[in-house]
Amino acid sequence: MKEKCLETRKIYSGRVVALRIDRVMLPSGRKSIREVVEHRGAVAAIPVKGDKIILIRQYRYPVDEVIYEIPAGTREKNETPDETMARELEEEIGYRAGRLTHLFTFYSTPGFTTEKISIYLAEELEPVERRPEHDENIEVVEVEKERIPEMIKNGEIRDGKTIAALCYYMLGAG
Amino acid sequence: MKEKCLETRKIYSGRVVALRIDRVMLPSGRKSIREVVEHRGAVAAIPVKGDKIILIRQYRYPVDEVIYEIPAGTREKNETPDETMARELEEEIGYRAGRLTHLFTFYSTPGFTTEKISIYLAEELEPVERRPEHDENIEVVEVEKERIPEMIKNGEIRDGKTIAALCYYMLGAG
Repeated sequence: MKEKCLETRKIYSGRVVALRIDRVMLPSGRKSIREVVEHRGAVAAIPVKGDKIILIRQYRYPVDEVIYEIPAGTREKNETPDETMARELEEEIGYRAGRLTHLFTFYSTPGFTTEKISIYLAEELEPVERRPEHDENIEVVEVEKERIPEMIKNGEIRDGKTIAALCYYMLGAG
Repeated sequence: MKEKCLETRKIYSGRVVALRIDRVMLPSGRKSIREVVEHRGAVAAIPVKGDKIILIRQYRYPVDEVIYEIPAGTREKNETPDETMARELEEEIGYRAGRLTHLFTFYSTPGFTTEKISIYLAEELEPVERRPEHDENIEVVEVEKERIPEMIKNGEIRDGKTIAALCYYMLGAG
């Protein structure tokens, strides 16, 4: 079922993504083109505080909206996924997690990008001084777990990793 | 909180995605670069057949794996989302849905792409002749609902829209 790369052409290499266009051979023998957005992957966590989840609200330029998300980040050089997650929790919501448990890992949208996101559960939260990164303009909000399904249905929560993570978590917890 | 576009540069325009690089002004007054992968959006449906969900297994070139997904597709010219969904269900799994209900809509990964995915529930399924599209190499499988959380946890199901859709559905149904 695999497709074989015949030729690859690098179009762009940037800060967050790179784009390459591959000419491929399909299993049928026909030839086609595949557009691949390369991304180095991300981690995200569900910060649980009693019957509330801590979410952030942040502006996302590609969709030109301020949206709710669970805290997340991309790995910096020489960091393990656990280290990235711990750093992002401090930077984005100002908490250190006593317990960080990996739940699952998925591809955000595998039709055109390599991006893989690992979801953690962050528990036993202790407040620390928040150290927001330059350029980040983040509001921290606490949301009652029971409001989440409704917030997804009415479009208030509309970030893919956030919906996947919260629904998976609530399915197991419920 | 918004960021203002100062200058936009089109890098690539292809079959599935387009890439543009924008120079922006942040709320702080500082300037930065934003990489935006434009995508025309997709629809996907959860086909429910008794206590089973119909999934497809298909090869995805960017991640070089055969993965489980709910049926999905991108809109063709002049189609409404409902028409796209009905067409994709026939092409990909060979069923016509007597009832198609919109559940929610989300951004697949809004940090770098405009892609928006609308999730439907497909019920009252009637078999029709399957008409797979050229280039598609799809296997249709029926999975028991109760196996799904475990398949996400162990990485068997690892497509974002599929996890978001199935967990949301099971949360409401359970």
